[in-house]
Amino acid sequence: MTKIALLTSGGDAPGMNAAIRAIVHSCQHHQYECIGFFHGYNGLLNDEWQALTHADVGNILQFGGTILKSARCPAMCDPKGPKQAANTLRKHQIDALIVIGGDGSFRGLEALKAHWEGQVIGLPGTIDNDLAGSDNTIGFATAVTTATHAIDKIRDTANAFERVFIVEVMGRHSGHIAFNVGLATGAEAILSFENCDPADTAPQLARLISQIQVQQQHNHDSFVIVLAENLWPGGPQALKAQLAEQAGIDSAVCVLGHIQRGGSPAPEDRLLATELGLEAVNAVSRNQDRIMIGKQGSTLQAVPLNGAINDAKPVNGRWVAAHEDVLTEYLIKHSE
Amino acid sequence: MTKIALLTSGGDAPGMNAAIRAIVHSCQHHQYECIGFFHGYNGLLNDEWQALTHADVGNILQFGGTILKSARCPAMCDPKGPKQAANTLRKHQIDALIVIGGDGSFRGLEALKAHWEGQVIGLPGTIDNDLAGSDNTIGFATAVTTATHAIDKIRDTANAFERVFIVEVMGRHSGHIAFNVGLATGAEAILSFENCDPADTAPQLARLISQIQVQQQHNHDSFVIVLAENLWPGGPQALKAQLAEQAGIDSAVCVLGHIQRGGSPAPEDRLLATELGLEAVNAVSRNQDRIMIGKQGSTLQAVPLNGAINDAKPVNGRWVAAHEDVLTEYLIKHSE
Amino acid sequence: MTKIALLTSGGDAPGMNAAIRAIVHSCQHHQYECIGFFHGYNGLLNDEWQALTHADVGNILQFGGTILKSARCPAMCDPKGPKQAANTLRKHQIDALIVIGGDGSFRGLEALKAHWEGQVIGLPGTIDNDLAGSDNTIGFATAVTTATHAIDKIRDTANAFERVFIVEVMGRHSGHIAFNVGLATGAEAILSFENCDPADTAPQLARLISQIQVQQQHNHDSFVIVLAENLWPGGPQALKAQLAEQAGIDSAVCVLGHIQRGGSPAPEDRLLATELGLEAVNAVSRNQDRIMIGKQGSTLQAVPLNGAINDAKPVNGRWVAAHEDVLTEYLIKHSE
Amino acid sequence: MTKIALLTSGGDAPGMNAAIRAIVHSCQHHQYECIGFFHGYNGLLNDEWQALTHADVGNILQFGGTILKSARCPAMCDPKGPKQAANTLRKHQIDALIVIGGDGSFRGLEALKAHWEGQVIGLPGTIDNDLAGSDNTIGFATAVTTATHAIDKIRDTANAFERVFIVEVMGRHSGHIAFNVGLATGAEAILSFENCDPADTAPQLARLISQIQVQQQHNHDSFVIVLAENLWPGGPQALKAQLAEQAGIDSAVCVLGHIQRGGSPAPEDRLLATELGLEAVNAVSRNQDRIMIGKQGSTLQAVPLNGAINDAKPVNGRWVAAHEDVLTEYLIKHSE
Repeated sequence: MTKIALLTSGGDAPGMNAAIRAIVHSCQHHQYECIGFFHGYNGLLNDEWQALTHADVGNILQFGGTILKSARCPAMCDPKGPKQAANTLRKHQIDALIVIGGDGSFRGLEALKAHWEGQVIGLPGTIDNDLAGSDNTIGFATAVTTATHAIDKIRDTANAFERVFIVEVMGRHSGHIAFNVGLATGAEAILSFENCDPADTAPQLARLISQIQVQQQHNHDSFVIVLAENLWPGGPQALKAQLAEQAGIDSAVCVLGHIQRGGSPAPEDRLLATELGLEAVNAVSRNQDRIMIGKQGSTLQAVPLNGAINDAKPVNGRWVAAHEDVLTEYLIKHSE
Repeated sequence: MTKIALLTSGGDAPGMNAAIRAIVHSCQHHQYECIGFFHGYNGLLNDEWQALTHADVGNILQFGGTILKSARCPAMCDPKGPKQAANTLRKHQIDALIVIGGDGSFRGLEALKAHWEGQVIGLPGTIDNDLAGSDNTIGFATAVTTATHAIDKIRDTANAFERVFIVEVMGRHSGHIAFNVGLATGAEAILSFENCDPADTAPQLARLISQIQVQQQHNHDSFVIVLAENLWPGGPQALKAQLAEQAGIDSAVCVLGHIQRGGSPAPEDRLLATELGLEAVNAVSRNQDRIMIGKQGSTLQAVPLNGAINDAKPVNGRWVAAHEDVLTEYLIKHSE
Repeated sequence: MTKIALLTSGGDAPGMNAAIRAIVHSCQHHQYECIGFFHGYNGLLNDEWQALTHADVGNILQFGGTILKSARCPAMCDPKGPKQAANTLRKHQIDALIVIGGDGSFRGLEALKAHWEGQVIGLPGTIDNDLAGSDNTIGFATAVTTATHAIDKIRDTANAFERVFIVEVMGRHSGHIAFNVGLATGAEAILSFENCDPADTAPQLARLISQIQVQQQHNHDSFVIVLAENLWPGGPQALKAQLAEQAGIDSAVCVLGHIQRGGSPAPEDRLLATELGLEAVNAVSRNQDRIMIGKQGSTLQAVPLNGAINDAKPVNGRWVAAHEDVLTEYLIKHSE
Repeated sequence: MTKIALLTSGGDAPGMNAAIRAIVHSCQHHQYECIGFFHGYNGLLNDEWQALTHADVGNILQFGGTILKSARCPAMCDPKGPKQAANTLRKHQIDALIVIGGDGSFRGLEALKAHWEGQVIGLPGTIDNDLAGSDNTIGFATAVTTATHAIDKIRDTANAFERVFIVEVMGRHSGHIAFNVGLATGAEAILSFENCDPADTAPQLARLISQIQVQQQHNHDSFVIVLAENLWPGGPQALKAQLAEQAGIDSAVCVLGHIQRGGSPAPEDRLLATELGLEAVNAVSRNQDRIMIGKQGSTLQAVPLNGAINDAKPVNGRWVAAHEDVLTEYLIKHSE
């Protein structure tokens, strides 16, 4: 009987539980055995696991977090870690390992393949949406939803005070969250990797100051800046200081932080996780290996793990242009 | 100067305001004049309108409903209505009319074309997602989100009582909401046009009874049936009665109703509405006519209005199969 | 060692889990043993239970439903039921039984006392807020919150269509939910036991029609009627028909239903449940019996079970007057 | 005809719009004229205002922020500011001024009384709940709700990673938000003014470290510390550093920030604001002066402005004890 192992790894993402549920159901459909390791790759190193049947995954798809727990596992970057993990998999006679996680988790799969003959399948589970080969990653829609509603709340108080807010959102080194949230909240400015060079922020700062001044002269309600994390040297507090020093502009800072990682998954994440989870087991049955299952448009597809990690996945350029050339154009026009 | 008219028509859908905002911004970018008519086509018949500039559309994209109001307009089905609407458009020297609405609204555009020489552009605005040529319609994501969270709440009480619930969701004559919501909530049964023949419900009823009995014998927490509106003869109350009469199964009925039409739009709807709104004005500038702007995958596209109304847009068959053959398979398996 | 038994009974209410958690923590503080029976009183009849320690109640206070399940138990109305329940309690050497539930559950406690010498303590757990001796019952705040946000969504679509909506809310035979929700949503009309005689609805109907007509003449956005369940003969559909027949007024009906029973409890319910749960165990230590623990203002108090069931707990008359005489006065004034 | 002026001042609080609406309705009931000044006291200094009738306050009670805008107004601390404000009030022949705000706003009213003969009435509008004479202030319930749901999300990711989180909540110099939110989320530790001396944090730090170590040894899911703003020297980052340095404990910091000030008001805030708003106008009609309207239990009451500002309003000591002595006792017990 084919035996599948499963773990969730790296930063947790809402929807991981829905993926686990789908994988377990699909295993039962294929008459495969399924076991889950705990705490990411640590569960492989420590041989910490449980068998999974559909009774174990009832009533979990609507909850954030992961019933298998997650963790970073630096030991997988050592030569010894993957070897030990391979031993555990061999001991349990595992045929295929499915890992739900981000690029670090996929690198762990690649490292493992040097020591293990079984199939490895990745599912894209990260709020940052920074894996190529899938339009969206599991958790991204929820993070965007949470950040959007948080900024909706901030907008209330920003409007009441006609105030400038700098709101930092997550995304690691990509602007997917920043642009989705910025456009969804009608942010007056979006500062992200796609339209701002961290090595030379002066032009963006000058433009931002000019836009805020136009806004304030024309007495608009408020000015919300959505800032991608890891972009601005010194972070949002540095930007705040620069606005104050260079133009006497007062602003408030909000760092949305870890609320973006939790919460009941948005329906989009539950559906995506369900589809990808079912397909991961199908891929095992087709003897596929070293792939990530992704979804583009309405098509499920297998992409090489290397491609998922290394290929570029830029934010839609149309969105960047729309934001700057059309939606916030009046902030420039007026200044002329 | 090019002059664009705009109205929202038919059942309102969260995200309509975001579309209005984008159209107005895009008009200013193109240096077009923009006016909005109120109450759907009635605004054309009664010459009720206002000019729209970016100041009018500030701070609206996060709200449900539509600042231009909406309405059904039976007069547009008469020969006289479209003629009168055409006169109003001529009087205001309108070059293009953009209508955000559903299939009835698009039929209104077609009727109008018999009497008017200007360009007509439709944007898909309906929670039902029953227009071909766009993966999603504006409002659909919000309706799915609202219904999903409502059923999450029902699940709590269903679990506490280990009870059967019949939850009716909207969708008119399509199962998009039913299947999205059913899969997102882990519904034990989904009854929709795709898997149930309204003219012969006996097989589905028998299967449903058998599944509920399996569930109850194996002491699962609860059993949620997501039922598409307009499907079951006699509606959810008839289904409840049949479950009681034929198998002594007690159940509770919830009709989610109009909460699915309102509320702050989900970020997906705000983004889709923004993209389609911007593109609608681009289409005017390209002299396009009698089209609907849709989005498939990440591609914006123009489809003939007739196609949007008449072409089939089935629910993904993969989803129907996944629900029945994999995710709820244990309810059948156990009964053998 | 003192041994406490615990069960949740009757209609479930968000916050029951928080009460269970507090009781278990308080038992450990008092060094009492604690066990929970499942499915309300049925757990006593069927001897279905588990021991409860703080590890069992970790991470439950934020969830709706009840980990002990709930159920109605008609057998407790027979003479045999309470006797059997008493036997179970005796077998387990229970010193005190704490029941979280509504008036039916408290009647069960009274019936039990005829056969059992232990202490019985009730906690008010019902969304209907219809128990005297506590300003609020556990679950009430959540039900009000859920219904309020649902009507906020309905308001969007009502405004877009300038439409009349009849929204039925729960409350059994009291108007607490109706008035709280009606005032919180700015409902144009509230129909409840406090201001409407079910035996003679003609005056209210006439007044309602007059108010709607005033509203429509003065072109207000929408008209929302919050209707208490079990009030109007024939229910909301009858009211809808009467509005149509008597005045040609078109309206839409929404029955909010069971979404009001579930969902993550509002913080108010979590806090109330925690306080009452802690105090219930204190009451056991003080040898109190046949009481319900309630909270009035910021004071915890013990009231006789009989009083909690039988004393009147009217909706604040100030609220009824404020709604009719001040907040909706313009709907009458204009008609003069 | 009596003429009432109205403004919102200081940090905005969800529910201010509901108070404005109630005041306007009550003015119409009393046949008083009502005007609103913008931007807090600045509106008085700059004579920026509009007349308010019920048409102006339709459809606002469900929204956060304030339609009258708010602002701090340092000029009211000068001798000249209040004099100028008095002149504006005299110019408009205002009989009474109602201000919705916090202690600074009430001090402004007191300063104004030195120069103005009219009545001044305060309504407690602040998320911090730090005004004596009212159990709750307008905005407090919403802030608690928002922070509670934010921590629920953080709990998901904290559980998945079995991680320590330090979450800073607002409250200025009081622990009302910290204790309400801490208890409502089942926080393992609450650090606030009531149980922690900012001048000597060493005992609390030692205790915290011991509790975290107990938790980690017994493998509980996660450890959430709710920290009141302005308490810990150096803020949450300093606490994080101390945990790391003194005990090698890794933790993550979240500062919830301004999301606590916005958002659709919780029903409790809408109801409180409505009641207090109606009563404020009644107080004018009774010739009351220099009072704040508050609510204790279900009783509306007038308290002197000085008392509202200066009297102590401690967090319920029962809650502090319950948290430390009962709910988190197992974290200490285990360490013995």
